[in-house]
This record gives sequence, structure tokens and C-alpha cells, in this order.
Amino acid sequence: MTAINMLRLDSTNPDFARDLQQRLAWDASDDLDIHQRVLEIIANVRKSGDQALIDYTNRFDRTNFTTAGELELDKAALKHAWDSLPDDQAQALQTAAERVRAYAEQQKLQSWQFTEADGTVLGQKVTPLDKAGLYVPGGKAAYPSSVLMNAIPAKVAGVGELIMVVPTPGGETNAMVLAAAYIAGVDRVFTIGGAQAVAALAYGTETVPAVDKIVGPGNIYVATAKKLVFGQVGIDMIAGPSEILIICDGQTHPDWIAMDLFSQAEHDENAQSILISDNSEFLDQVEASINKLLPEMERAEIIRASMTGRGAFIKVASLADAAEVANRIAPEHLELSVADPEALAAQIRNAGAIFMGRYTAEALGDYCAGPNHVLPTSSTARYSSPLGVYDFQKRSSLINCSAAGASELGKIASVLARGESLTAHARSAEYRI
Amino acid sequence: MTAINMLRLDSTNPDFARDLQQRLAWDASDDLDIHQRVLEIIANVRKSGDQALIDYTNRFDRTNFTTAGELELDKAALKHAWDSLPDDQAQALQTAAERVRAYAEQQKLQSWQFTEADGTVLGQKVTPLDKAGLYVPGGKAAYPSSVLMNAIPAKVAGVGELIMVVPTPGGETNAMVLAAAYIAGVDRVFTIGGAQAVAALAYGTETVPAVDKIVGPGNIYVATAKKLVFGQVGIDMIAGPSEILIICDGQTHPDWIAMDLFSQAEHDENAQSILISDNSEFLDQVEASINKLLPEMERAEIIRASMTGRGAFIKVASLADAAEVANRIAPEHLELSVADPEALAAQIRNAGAIFMGRYTAEALGDYCAGPNHVLPTSSTARYSSPLGVYDFQKRSSLINCSAAGASELGKIASVLARGESLTAHARSAEYRI
Repeated sequence: MTAINMLRLDSTNPDFARDLQQRLAWDASDDLDIHQRVLEIIANVRKSGDQALIDYTNRFDRTNFTTAGELELDKAALKHAWDSLPDDQAQALQTAAERVRAYAEQQKLQSWQFTEADGTVLGQKVTPLDKAGLYVPGGKAAYPSSVLMNAIPAKVAGVGELIMVVPTPGGETNAMVLAAAYIAGVDRVFTIGGAQAVAALAYGTETVPAVDKIVGPGNIYVATAKKLVFGQVGIDMIAGPSEILIICDGQTHPDWIAMDLFSQAEHDENAQSILISDNSEFLDQVEASINKLLPEMERAEIIRASMTGRGAFIKVASLADAAEVANRIAPEHLELSVADPEALAAQIRNAGAIFMGRYTAEALGDYCAGPNHVLPTSSTARYSSPLGVYDFQKRSSLINCSAAGASELGKIASVLARGESLTAHARSAEYRI
Repeated sequence: MTAINMLRLDSTNPDFARDLQQRLAWDASDDLDIHQRVLEIIANVRKSGDQALIDYTNRFDRTNFTTAGELELDKAALKHAWDSLPDDQAQALQTAAERVRAYAEQQKLQSWQFTEADGTVLGQKVTPLDKAGLYVPGGKAAYPSSVLMNAIPAKVAGVGELIMVVPTPGGETNAMVLAAAYIAGVDRVFTIGGAQAVAALAYGTETVPAVDKIVGPGNIYVATAKKLVFGQVGIDMIAGPSEILIICDGQTHPDWIAMDLFSQAEHDENAQSILISDNSEFLDQVEASINKLLPEMERAEIIRASMTGRGAFIKVASLADAAEVANRIAPEHLELSVADPEALAAQIRNAGAIFMGRYTAEALGDYCAGPNHVLPTSSTARYSSPLGVYDFQKRSSLINCSAAGASELGKIASVLARGESLTAHARSAEYRI
């Protein structure tokens, strides 16, 4: 087995910005052929409803459904999955769900209003979405943790009906996924997947209700379908490959850091694991740990491909420099494996989630610490946030003018409207003076 | 002049849902030719930077710029625009800005954190975007109110640098727009527009800095460019035609209601004005007011086209019915011109902004009441919110595990990770037990 030689960058190098940009670059360009096939699937589901859904499902998932009713799993099936789970898994899922729920409760937006001196009331009313759809991948890539992370914030927000879709390739269901749906409080589950499931959630069929927003991860067909139905419904982010950025002062055991890098790299070959340190000997030690631990890993080949193709070690002059590099990268996951993580976190502006201190492995956050594991990837943490309760709530502005308030505001609105040559606006305001 | 006969719908009619859907339908399908031209403009700006920007600007805006420095308006130019404004306009703009700012201050998200019994700290850190870009249309469609509504929330959020772009077709600037930029606290202004301005903000040139998010309205080229750069930067919503839905109990002067409908219809021929009442005689009275007032309107032909092509009067059995129809429409603007607007507002789940009571004309909210006039259109209020301070802030999750906390969480994470066959995740967690 050849050793992994990590790509090394140095932040004091004049070409550093360019070299870093090159390593971060990720081309998520659309495949026109997939685009076309997904458009066709959406059009057919809109036109033929349940029948199209049955046909596509039988074809892509090798099933033999004949009526749309068979596409739904009833509550008893979910409860059965939960009841038959081994004790340790049930306990772990339950505790994770409780912690995710407790954190989510803190995120809930509240309505507010205030009254001005003349009696005019201004406010913001917060309401949950009526219906939300949750896409869950089927087969081997099915992650029960992902069900908890997507479903619980929706239920905490108060979404009226949460509808999950999960394909069952060859009829195979995943007990832990169904058990997670059960304890997360998912309202209805349909055994459909792919672009056809997204289309059904967006437009509705005779059997599947149309929702207001669709969340959850999926393959390229699912992601393309989500992009194409956006506007008809809301969607969460379209995720790129997962990333971790670790800043370490050189005082954490190098095996710990190597394994934390692996935990990202094992997701897939495009996942990105980057380590920053002000200590170049430590970078050598972590590289040694990587090569020592790699042969023990079940997913060694995926990890190798990810580490050599997309990973990097960055040497910086100081931890303050490290923070600035992190802000430029705007990573999905940022581990601060340093003596004073609070001081360093104060310098971070752009990151999906910040894992502070040597004990806070990203894996703890992936499953059960409480904060969501659905996080902005590909530098989008510069302007977007983790999935949260707020993604299942929306705001309406409230304006209730008193007669006196309307009279004063009417004068201002009239001047501005006439300045914009919008005279019907002006006259509508002037009626209230 | 032929009289306007408003399309009448009745919510008790069995075909009502279908008929309403037909009237609401709005096809925002992409124009492939425009798509292709915008892609080319973006590619050229990425490749040639300032030079492409100068070339496109000279060509599309009939200007004669030779160096990129000429594309920037300095602070003195903005101050001059403000100083030379007539008193009534300056006063109106100032008051509007103060009210928009006071409301926006209420929207600011705050960071929070809590400590668990074992010392583990969980939290959510809120930070402003580093840089934001604001697109402002040039020429006749230039709206100073729109500058205030987009710029003030960004500045209240604490955005580091707010960069405005506004084309100057034929070299013509709009004093009120520049004055609005001045009092809103815009940091830099470039006299560029179209897809080339969006590309410059998204990718940066030698002169124009790259931003993290682009907001503001624009024509089809601007909207297409925003869609295409999404991901590289954040964007606000892509707005459809503006809409108003008025629910009236028949006790407001029909002229007021007619003018409120006009104030939406005068925007453009695709704007949509809908009136709902439980009183069919009142609908007749408003139709009479429409035909009486129309000849007096400066934009009579636009109003006529909008009212006949996209407007509607809906007769309902009760105000509770009206609320349900409103929830189905999820209007951008909802006027509750009724005796008890609080009671009715309590039944509304889906609306961008709710204007309560007979005195609260939408026009007051468009200019100066305080809440933002950038609102979700085309039924997207089902899942999205008015533009606000929160659009210029993002959240990072914080996780800081104590040794004891990491040990407990590590056990749970290990079980769940092994259940998902992610052993590097499991081992990373197990190191902390």
C-alpha cells in the first residue's frame, strides 16, 4: 500500500490564495441529460398522478405495486420497526432525538408587535408551514440520523403535516429509518423515491398531498428535481460534498485528528478534509497517524481517494491566521482543537457548525450533540445557516394604522409615490389623510 | 371607453378551486435565449473583469467610460444628491428611513448559548454577512423606496460593506435614488447594471469587490443572472408580478377599495388585484367606482389591462371563508378592510404582509409604515418571508463538549454510527469515551 502524502499549502506563500481556491473548487455543473429526464418525470407525475408514480416506482425500485394505497406505510408499520429495534439502538436513537429536540426548541421564532404613540400597531407574525415533505434516501445510504435531523425541527416548528418519502429498492425497508420516523413524529410515510417522489410532493397526486416545502438529501436525480420544483414549493439547500476543517495547535493526539479527518473522508471520494496548524511537525505526525490508521479502516479506499484528491494540510504562522483562512473557506464543519477554543471561535465569522475543544469530535455533532447536522457546504456558510426550526416557519408583517397614524403616514407616502410617478399609490394614501 | 367588467368567482361554486387556480396561474418559464446570453455575459466578466464591465456598460447604457475608476460614484456625489433634494422629498425620505430602521431593529437575530449539567455548552452564533450587493434598476423604473427597503436591513444587520449597483442609461442618474443610498448608509456605488453588474458582484473584478449575497429587483436579465450565480453567492427571492388581495366586509368606501386595487394594478399589466367580499352588492359598488375613477388615472391603460386580464372579484359566504381563500392564495399583500381585523388576521396563515383595518392602505406599507415592501409573490408566502435583517445574518452552531459530556455522547454516537456502517465516525467518537 503506498503511503498518503497530503497536499501541503503555506498561508505565507504568495500564491496561497490561488492554490487554496484551486483545492476548494467544486464544479456542480448540471448534467443536461439528467435535467431533461427529470423534467419528463415531473411532467408525467403532474399529468398522470398516482399512475405515473406507480409506474416509475415499479420500474426504478423493482417493485410490484398495483394501487396507490400500497405506496403508504401505516403507523403500525413504523411502530413495529421501533418496537423491534435492539435495545442499544433504540436507546441511542431516543437520546439523540431528545437532544435534537431540546436544541431545536431554542431556535423557535416568536411573533412580536409594538404599538406607537398614535395607536398604530406594527408587528411580525410567525406561523409554521402547513405541510412539509421530507426526502429520505433508500437502500444502503439510508441514515436514521438524517431522519431525526430533518423531521424534528419541522415538528418543533409546528408543521401541520410532515410527509416522508423513502424508496424501498427491491421492496427492502430499513428498520432503523422507520423507527427514527416513528419517534420523530413523522405523520405519513410513502415508499417512493427519486424525482417522481419530489414531483409528487411538489404538485400532489390523488394519494400524495402537495406540500409547501421539501427538505432532505438525495442523489443527483433528487437534487435536480428539487431545483426544478423550487418556486412551486420551497426547498432546503442543495448540498455539495461534505467537508471538515480542523484547526489544531499541535497539542491534540495526532490519532484523534487523523480519525476526525477520516470521519469526513469516509462519506465519499469527493468529501474534503483539511487540517490547519501553526506547527509543521504536528502536520507530519498527523500524516504518520493517517498512514498508520488507514489500513484498519473499513472504507480505506474511499478515504484514500478523498484525502489524496481533495484533502490538504495548511501551515499558518499563527492561530489568528488560521481563523482568517477558515473565514475564507467558510467550512461546513469547523473543529477548533486548541487550548482556548472560545478565543478562537470569537474570530470565526463563516462556518456551518463550530466544534470547540479537543473533546468535541465532529461525529458527536453528526449524531447526538443537539445542533443540526444539515449544514451549508461549498463555502455557502458565508451567507446561509444550518437547517433549523426557522426553516419550517415563515413571517408575515403586520401593519394596523390608527386614523391618526394613517393620516401622518399618508402624507409621507403621497410625496414619495408622486416622486416615483405612482399616482394611484399616492391617491390611495391621500384618501386616508 | 368600454367599462371594465371584473371576473366574478364564487367560493361556493363546485368549480371554484379550479377557476381560482386558473386565474392565479403565472408562467415564469425561462427564456432559453436570454439564459444563453446571460451565461455568456457572466463568463466574459469572469474572464476579462473590469474591461468586460466597461465594454458592456458602454454598449448597453450608451456611456463612454474608459477606465473602471469612472464606474464608481464617490460619497460626495451621493451627499450632493441628498443636499439638493426638495425639502418635502428629503423630509419624507428621512422619516421613511427612520421608520424602516426602527422596525428592522426588532428583527435582529441574537446569538444564544446554554450550558448543560456536565459542562457541555451548546449555542448558536449569529453574524452579519461580510459583504452584500444591492441591485437598483436605473432610468424611469428607479424607486428610491426600494433602496431604503433593501439597504437598511443590511446595515442594521451589520453587513461589513454594502455595495450598490445602479445603471445610468445615457449617463442619466436619479437624484432621489442616490439620496436614498446616502441616508441608508450604502458604502459604495457603481454605475453599472444588467447581468454584467450581477456577475461583477458575484465574482468580483479588479475594481468591484465580490460580495456574499445579492439582493434587489431587476429586469429579466438581472433575474436570470441572479438565478445563475446562486450558489456562488446568496440571492433574495426572484419576484413575480406584484399582487394585492383585499378582504372587505362591505363597510369601507368603495372608492378607497377601488383605488387600493389600482395601486397594485398600476405597477404593470401582469400585476394582480383581487377583492373578496361576503357582500355581492358591495362588489357591484366597487366595480362602479373602478369605472368612475379609471379615466382620472395617469396609468389608466396599464390598470385596465391588469384588472381585466388578471384581476378578480370573489364572493364568499362568510369572512371565515374569505380567510381560507386567502390562505390558499397566500398573497404578497393582504388588506383586511373589515370591522375586526385582529379576529380575521388570527385566521391568516399565509401572507407576505397583512394590512389591518380600513385606514391601512397598502401604499402606506409600500413607503413608510416600517415593515419591508420586498415580499414573497406568487403564493410563495406559504413558505417564505418578507426581506428582513435576518436575510443579512447567518447562524453557526456551537458545540463545546466537556470531557464528561463527550464521553456520554461518544457512546451514543458510536452505536448510531455503527448502525449506519460509518466506522471512522464511530472510532472518532470512541476516542473521546
